[in-house]
Amino acid sequence: MSNAVSTASSLGAPDAEIVLAEGTTVRVRVPGSSANLGPGFDCLGLALGLYDEIQVTVAAAGVVVAVDGESAGEVPTDERHLVARAVVRGLEFAGVAAPGIALACVNAIPHSRGLGSSAAAVVGGLAAASALVAADGRRAALTESELVQLSSEFEGHPDNAAASVLGAGVVTWTRGGSEYFARRLDLHADIRATSFIPQTQSSTAHTRGLLPDAVPRTDAVFNVSRSALGVVALTSDPTCLVDATLDRLHQPYRAEAMPATNGLMQALRERGHAATVSGAGPSVLVIGTVDLGDDEARLAAEFGFQMVALPIAGGVEVIR
Amino acid sequence: MSNAVSTASSLGAPDAEIVLAEGTTVRVRVPGSSANLGPGFDCLGLALGLYDEIQVTVAAAGVVVAVDGESAGEVPTDERHLVARAVVRGLEFAGVAAPGIALACVNAIPHSRGLGSSAAAVVGGLAAASALVAADGRRAALTESELVQLSSEFEGHPDNAAASVLGAGVVTWTRGGSEYFARRLDLHADIRATSFIPQTQSSTAHTRGLLPDAVPRTDAVFNVSRSALGVVALTSDPTCLVDATLDRLHQPYRAEAMPATNGLMQALRERGHAATVSGAGPSVLVIGTVDLGDDEARLAAEFGFQMVALPIAGGVEVIR
Repeated sequence: MSNAVSTASSLGAPDAEIVLAEGTTVRVRVPGSSANLGPGFDCLGLALGLYDEIQVTVAAAGVVVAVDGESAGEVPTDERHLVARAVVRGLEFAGVAAPGIALACVNAIPHSRGLGSSAAAVVGGLAAASALVAADGRRAALTESELVQLSSEFEGHPDNAAASVLGAGVVTWTRGGSEYFARRLDLHADIRATSFIPQTQSSTAHTRGLLPDAVPRTDAVFNVSRSALGVVALTSDPTCLVDATLDRLHQPYRAEAMPATNGLMQALRERGHAATVSGAGPSVLVIGTVDLGDDEARLAAEFGFQMVALPIAGGVEVIR
Repeated sequence: MSNAVSTASSLGAPDAEIVLAEGTTVRVRVPGSSANLGPGFDCLGLALGLYDEIQVTVAAAGVVVAVDGESAGEVPTDERHLVARAVVRGLEFAGVAAPGIALACVNAIPHSRGLGSSAAAVVGGLAAASALVAADGRRAALTESELVQLSSEFEGHPDNAAASVLGAGVVTWTRGGSEYFARRLDLHADIRATSFIPQTQSSTAHTRGLLPDAVPRTDAVFNVSRSALGVVALTSDPTCLVDATLDRLHQPYRAEAMPATNGLMQALRERGHAATVSGAGPSVLVIGTVDLGDDEARLAAEFGFQMVALPIAGGVEVIR
């Protein structure tokens, strides 16, 4: 447990007519996620049943952040904390202010593993702000579309964020580089996910630098067909999952920088599993219709990964 | 009406034990199609309610082809005729032979307009061969998967061919450059198509030559998201159709070579319609949920195109 106090003045919308009442408390639960799912670079995502919980209380002044679980002691605990920034952005968007906020975060989503922890933090903070606004009642809470837009702005791509907002599977797209959209996929009932999580961390910013500015047209066309197939595989025909999770636009370029990730992914694919790099890695995700067993767990251990079966999650929600 | 006689010896599988009985006749009806649908280059297709009919009769010897309608007098009417080649390929694949065949084609799909006429010819010929085999009864008829594979081999990409085989919408993909696969999309009930057909023809081989070998990664990623969205728009949420039909991988490179096509497409998009180049052009396709009217027909006429509302078609079928 770590915490700190900030002395910033009123938070949220400047000169807001509406100031939230001190003591109002809300709690939200937000799932992690896996992005790309192979070919769907920056556009396919899956919400995973691994949750961060965030409690936000309107306080007299400043920003106080307490963190338990993943990342405790490793992140700033003042107004620079990602959840705090998202709460403040949500209040600002809704046109309300708070004299201060106290945050309590209980994190289960490991950080920098390609499991959407930062997108979850942002979505959780925005959803908490929305819940505070709803509790106040004088302004409208944020819509799902607004949550997708605001959360995607934080990182510049919407795949993880939209999965944490909407749950299940998502297809996302952008217009003009700054408008973000998403649609929820009604997943086939048999779809399940298994993640393989290493101890090592990875930086998305670093791994993005490994991608070339130009790609062979044949590779682009390959991914275009496989991402379209991905929607079919996830929603109606899981027998296509192995074909629907092959990628030529990002995984090959990052393979050398993540040899264990690539090795495990290839070993799982050779065994007939639809394995992909989870987001920018280093975790690996398998999407399928059966539970994996001891064989795959042992294989994962050989590469230094822990196998974790995860239910598909719903979207962020307010809890009591 | 034009026809010719060839004197080739036994057709189909060499040294086949099974020789089809002279006089056996089958008829098939095969729809045209539109490929790409914007972002889904070589992988999305839609079967259109514009049909070629093919009658095949087992004859004493040689290949006789009679053509009525589109392309009559413009195509070879011997064993080089595309439908005849497809019939022979189908017989060969099934392991049967015919002493000769007489073909009667009644064509409604205009040629070299981006409406899938050559794929329809191939699919129709293969399906007719399959129907002859089924009528004989000693060997199995061709499966849908086999029809997709064999028909795609003729042109090296499966989008139009699979649409003519399966009907409705299709997602197609390849493995290793020579194995072809497709899945039928259960289209949203409100989806309808309108084609805009010019008098001018276009050669797919020529327009493919206009595409670059390398493309910006951002454009590849753009199309990856839009083609995935295409499946969503076609099957569950047609409100996304306008966003789901934008392309950066092929249409922009061909625009200059087809100014009228590009001009009409852009004019239709500016009016809020999900307009794309149909296949490699020069026809334009609009996918939507409402019938287009006099305004669009007049607009099309200004660009030299005829507007034709087309129902979504089922796949190739044997008719009585």
